[in-house]
Amino acid sequence: MGQSVRNGAQVSAASDGKAPRTARGERTLRKILDAARGEFGERGFADSSIVAITQRAGVALGTFYTYFDSKEAVFRALVQDMSSQVRDRVAPAMEGATGFFDGERRALAAFLRFAREHRDVYRIIDEAEFVEHAAYREHYETTAIRIAARFAAARDKGEIAADLSDEDLEILAWADMGANVFVGLRFSVWASTDPDHVAEVTNRLLTKGLAR
Amino acid sequence: MGQSVRNGAQVSAASDGKAPRTARGERTLRKILDAARGEFGERGFADSSIVAITQRAGVALGTFYTYFDSKEAVFRALVQDMSSQVRDRVAPAMEGATGFFDGERRALAAFLRFAREHRDVYRIIDEAEFVEHAAYREHYETTAIRIAARFAAARDKGEIAADLSDEDLEILAWADMGANVFVGLRFSVWASTDPDHVAEVTNRLLTKGLAR
Repeated sequence: MGQSVRNGAQVSAASDGKAPRTARGERTLRKILDAARGEFGERGFADSSIVAITQRAGVALGTFYTYFDSKEAVFRALVQDMSSQVRDRVAPAMEGATGFFDGERRALAAFLRFAREHRDVYRIIDEAEFVEHAAYREHYETTAIRIAARFAAARDKGEIAADLSDEDLEILAWADMGANVFVGLRFSVWASTDPDHVAEVTNRLLTKGLAR
Repeated sequence: MGQSVRNGAQVSAASDGKAPRTARGERTLRKILDAARGEFGERGFADSSIVAITQRAGVALGTFYTYFDSKEAVFRALVQDMSSQVRDRVAPAMEGATGFFDGERRALAAFLRFAREHRDVYRIIDEAEFVEHAAYREHYETTAIRIAARFAAARDKGEIAADLSDEDLEILAWADMGANVFVGLRFSVWASTDPDHVAEVTNRLLTKGLAR
């Protein structure tokens, strides 16, 4: 979870000019983000408060303002942080895959596990559509670009159909992302169906749909 | 658009015991729902008001209460109404299809056209997650059941793979719905890409993914 902070994401996590400069500062920032996730996830943006976030985090109110300018700023940072967490959880799950399709199946299973453990991710990212629209859009655009790049690499290696243009792959990346988000909502957030099974059935669309 | 009202959806559109009993009443209810779509779509739930809805509809405040008990009630009715409108737009587009896969492609193209003409649909249904969660969930559950039923009918007619269980088809219906919602967001709401092209590329996943 601290991964994204350690890897330099602190540049965007804290407000401008407020990035932590020490390991201790990074830990405090992490505590604030985790507390914000609990607060926004349970109460929603409108009913959440900076005071409640600092109480959950066990830090002073002034400490909050060391890192963030406003409730909007910490919400925006949280959306970016959750987006990074999804990425950091999915990427290692793909290591050791026997090929493109196996990698995509592993990626989806890892995402479904993440969604099951962090059911509040959906509520927070969905609320961003209304509270921080740019962060909402950035989350999906960044994810779609990442998926399309994997598709293009597989095409260039001859693992999937060669006739798929980059434009086709962008459409298919959005379709794939939407499929993953919705099976996650239905089978990991609203229910708790075996992630490996759901990933395997869903992956059928990709495996055959993109086959050479 | 009046289709769903004429077909008996007025039972759920107006609040309990407030269903219109005349054609004129149905037209007034329709005017209120269309005004509510404009108001909620532009301003969001929190900043919308019953007074502004009646002004947009050109009806007296008392007339609003003839049909609805509250702002929540008209919002709930609107989500159900938009869900019915999507259904009523997609169903006829599938008539004359040469088979299951052609029908699904037509359904998606019709949905993409609807989303392009009614960009506020996304905002309203997405906000329902927070304002009227039951209506939000019902919209997607109903849609997924309809898609899964089409899949099952195609399987039983031998048009798609026979080894797909009803449980598999439920997972695949959610995946398909998510794919459609996300390509609609990206290519019909945020951009205005040719719906037939997007539907054809996206349909590749189904056509090959569910092939016999």
